Amino acid sequence: MPGSHHIVKSFDEELGKLQDAIARMGGLAEAQLAGFIQAITERDGEAAARVVAEDAKVDALDAQVNDMAVRLLALRNPVADDLRVVITALKMSGELERVADHAASSAKRVLVLNQMPPIGSVRAVARMGWLVVAMIKDVLDAYMNQDAEKALAVWGRDGEVDDLYSSVFRELLTYMLEDPRNITACTHLMFVAKNLERVGDHATNIAEMTHYLVTGQSLRKDRPKRDVTSQAVAEPRG
Amino acid sequence: MPGSHHIVKSFDEELGKLQDAIARMGGLAEAQLAGFIQAITERDGEAAARVVAEDAKVDALDAQVNDMAVRLLALRNPVADDLRVVITALKMSGELERVADHAASSAKRVLVLNQMPPIGSVRAVARMGWLVVAMIKDVLDAYMNQDAEKALAVWGRDGEVDDLYSSVFRELLTYMLEDPRNITACTHLMFVAKNLERVGDHATNIAEMTHYLVTGQSLRKDRPKRDVTSQAVAEPRG
Repeated sequence: MPGSHHIVKSFDEELGKLQDAIARMGGLAEAQLAGFIQAITERDGEAAARVVAEDAKVDALDAQVNDMAVRLLALRNPVADDLRVVITALKMSGELERVADHAASSAKRVLVLNQMPPIGSVRAVARMGWLVVAMIKDVLDAYMNQDAEKALAVWGRDGEVDDLYSSVFRELLTYMLEDPRNITACTHLMFVAKNLERVGDHATNIAEMTHYLVTGQSLRKDRPKRDVTSQAVAEPRG
Repeated sequence: MPGSHHIVKSFDEELGKLQDAIARMGGLAEAQLAGFIQAITERDGEAAARVVAEDAKVDALDAQVNDMAVRLLALRNPVADDLRVVITALKMSGELERVADHAASSAKRVLVLNQMPPIGSVRAVARMGWLVVAMIKDVLDAYMNQDAEKALAVWGRDGEVDDLYSSVFRELLTYMLEDPRNITACTHLMFVAKNLERVGDHATNIAEMTHYLVTGQSLRKDRPKRDVTSQAVAEPRG
């Protein structure tokens, strides 16, 4: 039946298109994060403004993935592996949309930070940034190559981000206590660091989804959470 | 055909069960927020610890909704309105899971705040809390009653939350600048306020989903965002 063969082939094509759209979103989210890191490191207001403006592109891609996924569900009735591909794409696009959101809202704060004297902790924040960009990049590679092992490796790396976040948080608190003139800048940097910590969480979620997509097995629940900043207590010196 | 009639009836039952699970999740998320507000207002460590512990229940419900939705998609091939019910449930459970997450992570910070002298801004933060609890409650009512008008009304209320958040943020910044002994407590309160502001965003997302579910029309994009704290600049006095 050439007709049915044609339908099957075009279904695979549609699934492929869905995955391509996810890859494009992922690439864009990565670029947005990299743009933010450049902006904060080099106090580059134009780069920051670009990241803020480009966020709309990620939102548009997210809406597109949603429409594609719903159309596939409605017209193709996918089951088993194919259903998993569609559901995963739907969820992953939500995660990537939030990753890009965090990049854009961090970039907005760069515009404010540029109005104040530089703070040393920017370097540690940028280090957090590179760490989470690498996680997003690797987890997208894992997704595109259906590599469950690689997804698992990314999943295990979130602890590093949490550790760095905790240390940045304490450092910022100390700067604020030392000199009230640092308070506003440090506050903004704290929210930036928190955004990056959340990007690490999204990378972990994507790793879980990829692992589920490839193996059909859930990873959830056992991941140790090492961010302890919500318990941080610091007192002014002297 | 009594057989096919039976299948149709049980499909409706399954859709009903899915919506009941969402209602249960919503009720739990609301209760978690209310528990957090009690905890922060009355400096009640036990209430805070309860909220932290109960978060696992919401996560379990989220996983349950996911499984139900995927099973429905695989076995029932829903189309049109029914497909929209399933997709909406899938997304809404993700939103509610994050609402509960924000309640739990705010409750964690109450445990730290209780180790420090009280800060006046707690009242304003609690006010934000009641505002977002009411939004979550109303948007869930709108969802359960398929009331697009009510969903639209909730969607329009997020600006109030953003305004209150901006004013709380500035107040906290001022306290920090006035007395470094307030810095740690104010920092935790800032993150709590940010969590509540995010809950308002999730209520808005749920309102968009409900509106789409009932009318098939997207609301997206035009909502004015009034949170301007990422641009806040404050200087120490004197």
